[in-house]
Amino acid sequence: MEADRRTRLSPEARRAQLLALGVASLADRPLDDLTVEKLSAEAGVSRGLLFYYFGSRQGLHHQVVTAARDGMLHATQPNLDLAPLDRLHDTLTRLVRFVRDHSGTFYSLVRGAASGDREVREVVDEARQIQAGWVLAVELELGATDTPLLRVALRAWVSFVEQVLVDAALDSQYADGQIVEFLERSLRAAAASVSEGKE
Amino acid sequence: MEADRRTRLSPEARRAQLLALGVASLADRPLDDLTVEKLSAEAGVSRGLLFYYFGSRQGLHHQVVTAARDGMLHATQPNLDLAPLDRLHDTLTRLVRFVRDHSGTFYSLVRGAASGDREVREVVDEARQIQAGWVLAVELELGATDTPLLRVALRAWVSFVEQVLVDAALDSQYADGQIVEFLERSLRAAAASVSEGKE
Repeated sequence: MEADRRTRLSPEARRAQLLALGVASLADRPLDDLTVEKLSAEAGVSRGLLFYYFGSRQGLHHQVVTAARDGMLHATQPNLDLAPLDRLHDTLTRLVRFVRDHSGTFYSLVRGAASGDREVREVVDEARQIQAGWVLAVELELGATDTPLLRVALRAWVSFVEQVLVDAALDSQYADGQIVEFLERSLRAAAASVSEGKE
Repeated sequence: MEADRRTRLSPEARRAQLLALGVASLADRPLDDLTVEKLSAEAGVSRGLLFYYFGSRQGLHHQVVTAARDGMLHATQPNLDLAPLDRLHDTLTRLVRFVRDHSGTFYSLVRGAASGDREVREVVDEARQIQAGWVLAVELELGATDTPLLRVALRAWVSFVEQVLVDAALDSQYADGQIVEFLERSLRAAAASVSEGKE
């Protein structure tokens, strides 16, 4: 039966299944502990098949981090039907929930940002750029002037948020709403500190 | 002569010399490219001697990052003779200058913060804790109430500063003073956004 079910999967579906297993494993251990050997044991498939799909440990890491990142971006995608501040509130609320539900994944992404592996780093840096772009859209819709310093500030605010989430989102003393409100205030404050300098 | 000069160095002085060479190499290449082989070739000493002093590639990285971190902390140590805001201004001014003069070292520290190597990560995390402690002292002297959320905000602000420095301090369009002033404003703003939430 098991073998039978397996043979029905297309290569693409099998690959996606293995990738999902790799992403799920980040809940319990850091990316660096994810090896082809462990994943092959957990998936009950040969190491050769994993090498076939992912090429190497590096290829596996790259693809697992990309899938984890895309999962986070998908879960926090701005709802463009909402007005800017409501959209920000909604996105941050979903981000805090994502971090609480998938803390291992989130840590792996934060850590991956400074990975020794350039490709892994770029995958995570892309997510930060995308998130900074979301926040830039909010600020511009609210009437901010698009300046290089505003963009610097918003990218830095994304790092600020990451650190707040690492510190606070796993600490049960803070309610989700409390963290979200603090992040909203801190963004207004960071954006204001850009424009104060302009006169 | 050369051999003669070498034999006069104590083991501790020799180790310090090799470590300084390792730190200096961060100006030109990332930490991950620093190997015992390369350092032994550059220093003109045997690999065996380097293994004797540093134990392994991991030991070398750990000690080089620790030395680089201590160099940064030393160069930006708060001057306690100054009043809180002057002290902050002075520390930030020296930090911006350090990043401009030692950008490779600074990148290696920022990257090291999320290294796969737990020990390297802890070395850099310690620097962030120390810097957050400096800023906490400033805030408390200015009358802030010491709350868990203030501490979360100040640690996050240290990450904000790191990202601003990565983005802006290597961009010649910004004068040092402009970056320092922006960082000062952003700190006042981040601290204010903590206390606004308290009522």
